[in-house]
Amino acid sequence: MYAISYQARKPVIDRCQVHFWSHGGVGEKVSASKPLVMGHEASGIVDHVGPGVSSLEGGNRVTIEPGYPCRRCNTYKRGQCNLGPGMKFAACPPDDHGTLTRLFKVPEDFCYKLPDNIGLEEGVMVEPLSAAIHAAKAGKIQHGDTVVILGSGTIGLLSAAVARAFGAKKVVAVDILEHKLQFARRWNGSNTFMADPGSSPVNNAHRLVKDNELGLGADVVVEASGAASSISFGVHTLRPGGSFVQVGVVGANVDFPIQQVAERGLHILGSYRYGAGDFQTALEMLSTKQIVVKDLISSTVPFEEATVAWEMTKRGQGIKNLIRGAGL
Amino acid sequence: MYAISYQARKPVIDRCQVHFWSHGGVGEKVSASKPLVMGHEASGIVDHVGPGVSSLEGGNRVTIEPGYPCRRCNTYKRGQCNLGPGMKFAACPPDDHGTLTRLFKVPEDFCYKLPDNIGLEEGVMVEPLSAAIHAAKAGKIQHGDTVVILGSGTIGLLSAAVARAFGAKKVVAVDILEHKLQFARRWNGSNTFMADPGSSPVNNAHRLVKDNELGLGADVVVEASGAASSISFGVHTLRPGGSFVQVGVVGANVDFPIQQVAERGLHILGSYRYGAGDFQTALEMLSTKQIVVKDLISSTVPFEEATVAWEMTKRGQGIKNLIRGAGL
Amino acid sequence: MYAISYQARKPVIDRCQVHFWSHGGVGEKVSASKPLVMGHEASGIVDHVGPGVSSLEGGNRVTIEPGYPCRRCNTYKRGQCNLGPGMKFAACPPDDHGTLTRLFKVPEDFCYKLPDNIGLEEGVMVEPLSAAIHAAKAGKIQHGDTVVILGSGTIGLLSAAVARAFGAKKVVAVDILEHKLQFARRWNGSNTFMADPGSSPVNNAHRLVKDNELGLGADVVVEASGAASSISFGVHTLRPGGSFVQVGVVGANVDFPIQQVAERGLHILGSYRYGAGDFQTALEMLSTKQIVVKDLISSTVPFEEATVAWEMTKRGQGIKNLIRGAGL
Amino acid sequence: MYAISYQARKPVIDRCQVHFWSHGGVGEKVSASKPLVMGHEASGIVDHVGPGVSSLEGGNRVTIEPGYPCRRCNTYKRGQCNLGPGMKFAACPPDDHGTLTRLFKVPEDFCYKLPDNIGLEEGVMVEPLSAAIHAAKAGKIQHGDTVVILGSGTIGLLSAAVARAFGAKKVVAVDILEHKLQFARRWNGSNTFMADPGSSPVNNAHRLVKDNELGLGADVVVEASGAASSISFGVHTLRPGGSFVQVGVVGANVDFPIQQVAERGLHILGSYRYGAGDFQTALEMLSTKQIVVKDLISSTVPFEEATVAWEMTKRGQGIKNLIRGAGL
Repeated sequence: MYAISYQARKPVIDRCQVHFWSHGGVGEKVSASKPLVMGHEASGIVDHVGPGVSSLEGGNRVTIEPGYPCRRCNTYKRGQCNLGPGMKFAACPPDDHGTLTRLFKVPEDFCYKLPDNIGLEEGVMVEPLSAAIHAAKAGKIQHGDTVVILGSGTIGLLSAAVARAFGAKKVVAVDILEHKLQFARRWNGSNTFMADPGSSPVNNAHRLVKDNELGLGADVVVEASGAASSISFGVHTLRPGGSFVQVGVVGANVDFPIQQVAERGLHILGSYRYGAGDFQTALEMLSTKQIVVKDLISSTVPFEEATVAWEMTKRGQGIKNLIRGAGL
Repeated sequence: MYAISYQARKPVIDRCQVHFWSHGGVGEKVSASKPLVMGHEASGIVDHVGPGVSSLEGGNRVTIEPGYPCRRCNTYKRGQCNLGPGMKFAACPPDDHGTLTRLFKVPEDFCYKLPDNIGLEEGVMVEPLSAAIHAAKAGKIQHGDTVVILGSGTIGLLSAAVARAFGAKKVVAVDILEHKLQFARRWNGSNTFMADPGSSPVNNAHRLVKDNELGLGADVVVEASGAASSISFGVHTLRPGGSFVQVGVVGANVDFPIQQVAERGLHILGSYRYGAGDFQTALEMLSTKQIVVKDLISSTVPFEEATVAWEMTKRGQGIKNLIRGAGL
Repeated sequence: MYAISYQARKPVIDRCQVHFWSHGGVGEKVSASKPLVMGHEASGIVDHVGPGVSSLEGGNRVTIEPGYPCRRCNTYKRGQCNLGPGMKFAACPPDDHGTLTRLFKVPEDFCYKLPDNIGLEEGVMVEPLSAAIHAAKAGKIQHGDTVVILGSGTIGLLSAAVARAFGAKKVVAVDILEHKLQFARRWNGSNTFMADPGSSPVNNAHRLVKDNELGLGADVVVEASGAASSISFGVHTLRPGGSFVQVGVVGANVDFPIQQVAERGLHILGSYRYGAGDFQTALEMLSTKQIVVKDLISSTVPFEEATVAWEMTKRGQGIKNLIRGAGL
Repeated sequence: MYAISYQARKPVIDRCQVHFWSHGGVGEKVSASKPLVMGHEASGIVDHVGPGVSSLEGGNRVTIEPGYPCRRCNTYKRGQCNLGPGMKFAACPPDDHGTLTRLFKVPEDFCYKLPDNIGLEEGVMVEPLSAAIHAAKAGKIQHGDTVVILGSGTIGLLSAAVARAFGAKKVVAVDILEHKLQFARRWNGSNTFMADPGSSPVNNAHRLVKDNELGLGADVVVEASGAASSISFGVHTLRPGGSFVQVGVVGANVDFPIQQVAERGLHILGSYRYGAGDFQTALEMLSTKQIVVKDLISSTVPFEEATVAWEMTKRGQGIKNLIRGAGL
C-alpha cells in the first residue's frame, strides 16, 4: 500500500562502496558468495506508485533515504530510527540489494520530492549531506561553537559546511593532503590545518589549538576521515567537557586516550547514518543555497562504465564520481 | 572571609593514593622532588571558622569536598564546576597539599555538616560515594535501566548501589576475583559476572548479555575498574544508543572499538570527580540508609601507622583502610 | 498482518470517561449525534491473532495500549509517538470506538502480555500508571528531587508512587479532601498538604513550602487534579528553574502567573497519555512490587451494571470502579 | 581584589526602566521611599582597576553585565547563574543602584572589553542582545526551526535576528503596529504578521500558521511583547511538542490555555536575563556583523536631558533612546 517504485538514478560511489566492490562488503558485513547490487546514494524519477500512496506520482523527481526501519521496536519508537535491529538498508549484504538498478522500491515516507531548484545530480548528494547533518546533531553543534573536522573528503567537507550553517563561529578543516585543504578553504571558507603524520597526536592537537586560537580547545570535533590515527589527535583538541563525534568508518580498533575522556569529562559519540528529519533538513539546505554541492561532483559516467567511476574513486581521483542511469 | 579550618580526620587511602605514595603522583601529575601531603577523602571536626562564615562553627562534625574552583571561568559558570582550569584539589602535585594533616583549610560551601546519624568513619565515604553519584548522572541512569558495573572495588560497589537507588531494574557487577563478586552479591544484591581474562572482550560481552538476559544489551555501563582490558568488553555489552561512563583511572591508552561506537550510536562519557549537588546527594543517601557503607570499611589504623594502611591497600587487602587522626 | 483481536476485559471508568458518558465527549472532542463505545483502560484475554503475529497467541492474558500512531510522520519518528496527528485512540469521537466491547482489535506491539503475578484487575491499572510514568519523565524527576503532586485521585496517587520509585527524596501529596490525603499517607507514605480553597494560591504555596521544608521550593510539581485553581498554586511552589507538569485535564483556560515563569526560569510542561516504553515500565513496576495497585480498586461490577460504576465514580465514591466482562 | 571601577557610559532606557521611573519599580520590586539610581544597560571606559585584576586596565572600552551572583549557591553551581537567590542586579530596589552614574563598580569577569569594531553606542546593545540570546537558548532554537516572535520592540527585533543567526529557516515577526512590522521586514528580512486585537487568540494563531505555511505549527515561539493577550495566541501557534519562551515582562496574571499545553505536549519556558556565555556570544555576533544594531539606536541625549529620553520612550517614540555621559 505504501510502497512505490521508481526509475533509479544511479548512485555515487563512495569509499565505503569501493570496499564493497573490492572485498564484497565492509567490516563484518560481507557477502562472500552471493552477488550484491550496490548503491545507497541515489536520486531518480518515480516510475509508478502503489495503492494508497498520496504524496507522490509517476514522473516525480525524487531522492531516497536508503534505510528504513521495522517501525515497531522500542529503539525506533524512542526516536532512534537508525539504530533499530530490524533496519533494512540498501546494499547491505547478504540480503538487501542496493540502488544501482533500474527500478527500486521504497516506502512513500522514505522518498522525498526534489524541489524545482535541485537537479538529479545534486539530489544524489542529499544522502551524504544527511549523514553530515546527523553527525552535527549528535555533537549538538550550536551557534558560537568552535568545530574541528578531521578529514576533508565528502563527509568532512559537508560536515564543515553544516557546522557553518548551524552557526559555528570557527571551523577548522583537517587533512594530510594540501590539495584537499585548498579545496576546503576555497569551497567552505574554513580554517585549515595540515596534520603531520610524523608527529604525535598530542603534538598535532596542541599545534592545531594554538594555531587556530581555540583557547582551552574545540567545542566539537567531527571525525570524518576514518583514519585510525586521527582519533587520539581529535580527542586531544577538545576543551574540557567537549564532544567528539565519530562518523568516519574505521576498520580496526584504535589506540585511544580513555584517561583524557575521564579526566576532562569528554563525550565520545557515535553517529550512524541519519535519523528523523535529516533528509528534510538536507533538502532545505540545498534549496535555500546554504550549501552548494555542485562543486563536489567531479565526474558523471554512464551506467555501462560504472567501474570507471569506482576505479577513479579508488585512486583518490575527484570527490564524488557519479553514475548516470540510462535515459536520464 | 569564607574560609574555615578544621581538625582533619585522616582520610582513607585508595589505589590512586597508593600511586602517589609509591611514585610521587599519578599520570602526568607527578611531584618529582618536592614532598607532598597526601589525602583527599576526609572527615573531621571544625577547629575554628573565619570571619563571615555563618553556617559552621567550631566543633561541627563535617566532611569536605576536596576540590574547589576559581568560581569565575565560563566552564564553572556553565555548571561544570569540576572541569574548570583554575581548579584546586587536595594532594594534587606540585602545589596543592592533601588532607592528611592536623588542620586543613576549605571554603565554607565545600564543607558539609554530617547529620547526627552519620559517623566520622562513614563521613570519609562521602567522597567516593559522590564520585559514584557523578558517574551515574554522567550516564543518565534512570528508573528501569539495566546497568553493568565493571570492577567491584570501592567505586564499583558504590556505583552499583547508586544505580539501584536511581531505580535501575537490573545491576550486574563484574570482576575477575570471585571474593569481590561474593561481596557485591551480599552487600548489594547485584547480579554478578566473572569476566574471563583468557576470552576476548567480544565473547565476554556476549556471555554477559546472554547470562543476564539483557536483550539488545545494557542501557548503561560504568567502568570503575581502571583495567585497560575492560573498556572494549564494556563497550560491547551496550545496547544500540547506550552509554558507557569512564570513571576508573586508566594509566595508558587502550585498544578501543571505535567502529562499534559509530555503528551503534553509542555514547562514551567521562566522569571526573563530582559536581554541584553530588556531596549533598551522597549525604542524603547515607542519612536515609539508602546506602549503608559501614561494611566497606575494612580497618582503621592510627595516624602513626598510616603506612600500614597503604601497604594493606597495595596488597589488595580489605576494601577501605582508614587512617584515624590523633584525638578522634 | 500485525493485528490481533482479543476478548476484552471491560475497562475502568475514570472521570474523563464520566465526561464522555454525561456529555458525549470531553473538551473539543465531542460526539454530538453518533453513539460511541467507551473505554480506554483495559485488560483481557487474546481471542485469536492475525497472520504474522509471533509474540502472542489465543489465551494470553494481556493489557493494551489504547492509542497507536500512523508510524510514519516525523512527530512519531522523533520519538513523540503520542503527539502525532495520525494517532488513533480508543473512545475518541467521532470515529474511534473504545474498549468496552467483547472483541477489540489492536496491533501486536501495542498489546502486552501480563506477567504471571499480575492479575487482570491490576492489568487495567497499567494504563493510568503509564500516564503517571509519562508525566514523571516529562518533568525529568530524578533521584533526590522534591516533588509536589496536586490532586490525590488515581493519577495523583500513582504519580506520587512513581516519583518515589524514581528516587524522589520527598513527595508531598495535595488535595482539599482529608480522606484522600489519609489514603495517600497510608498507601504511599507521602507527606500531605491540605490546600485551603479560601486562601490565595501564593499563600497556599508559601505554606506548603514552609511546612514541608522545601527551601527555595519544589524541584518538580505534577498537576493531576485538573482543578483550574491549582495551577497558579503549583507554579508558586517551585524553586527557581523548577518544572511543572500538567497531566490533569482542565476544561477551561486558567489564571496563570506567567511572570513567575519568566522571572524564575521555570518550565511548564505538558504530559499527554504515554510514549515509547511507558507500558513496559509500568508492567515492570507492578511485577516487581515497586507499586501495589490492588488497594486502588474500589469495586468491580458486571458489564450489565456498567452504569452503576459510572454513577459511583461521578459521586466521587471509591477510587477505581471496574467493569468486568462476561466470562472473566 | 577582583573588583574594578569604570566611568560609566549612560545606559539606554527601556520600558522596564520607564516603569521604574514612573512608579519607583516594577512588579513586586518597588522602592517606595528611597531614591534609586537607574540603569542596567551600559557601556563605558574603565577608570581604574582594583588589585589582582589582570585582564583589564584603565582606558579600556567595555560593556558590563549588570547582574552578578553570590558564586556559592547550588543554583549557581548547576549553571543557572541568573536564578540564584543571592544575585545582585543594577537598579534593583531597594538596595542595588544602577549604572546611570559616573563611576560603577563591577567584578572583572562581568566586565567585557569591546572589540575595536564595536563602538560605545553599540556596546550598550550587548545587554538586550544577551537577553535575546538567552531566550533563544531557553527555547533551544536550532537550525531549520520555524520561529514566531511576538512583539517587535527591541527584544523582539533582536530575538528575530538571533533566531536567524541560530539557523532558523523561517522567522515570523508579530506586532499590532504596521510601522514596527515594516521595520522588522526591512531590518531583519523576517516574515511579518499583523495580529488582530479584535479577533480571538485561536483565530489569530490559525491565521498566522496558515499565512506563513507553518504546517502543524511553529517549532518555537518567543514572547517578547509583554502583552497579556499575546500569551494564549502564541501557545496556539505551536506544533505538538513545540516550545514557548516567555521573555517579555507581563505585569499581571494572564488567561492561559493550560489544556493545550497538556494535550499537545508543549513546553512553556521562562527566560530571565542572561547566563554563562551570553555576553560573549553577543559580542561575537556584533563583531562579526551577524547582527547590526546601529539602526536600533534612535537617538542619543546628554545626561542632563535624561528625562527627555524617558519621555520619548514612554510615548513609544524611537526604538532605543540612549543617554550619553559627560566626556564621552
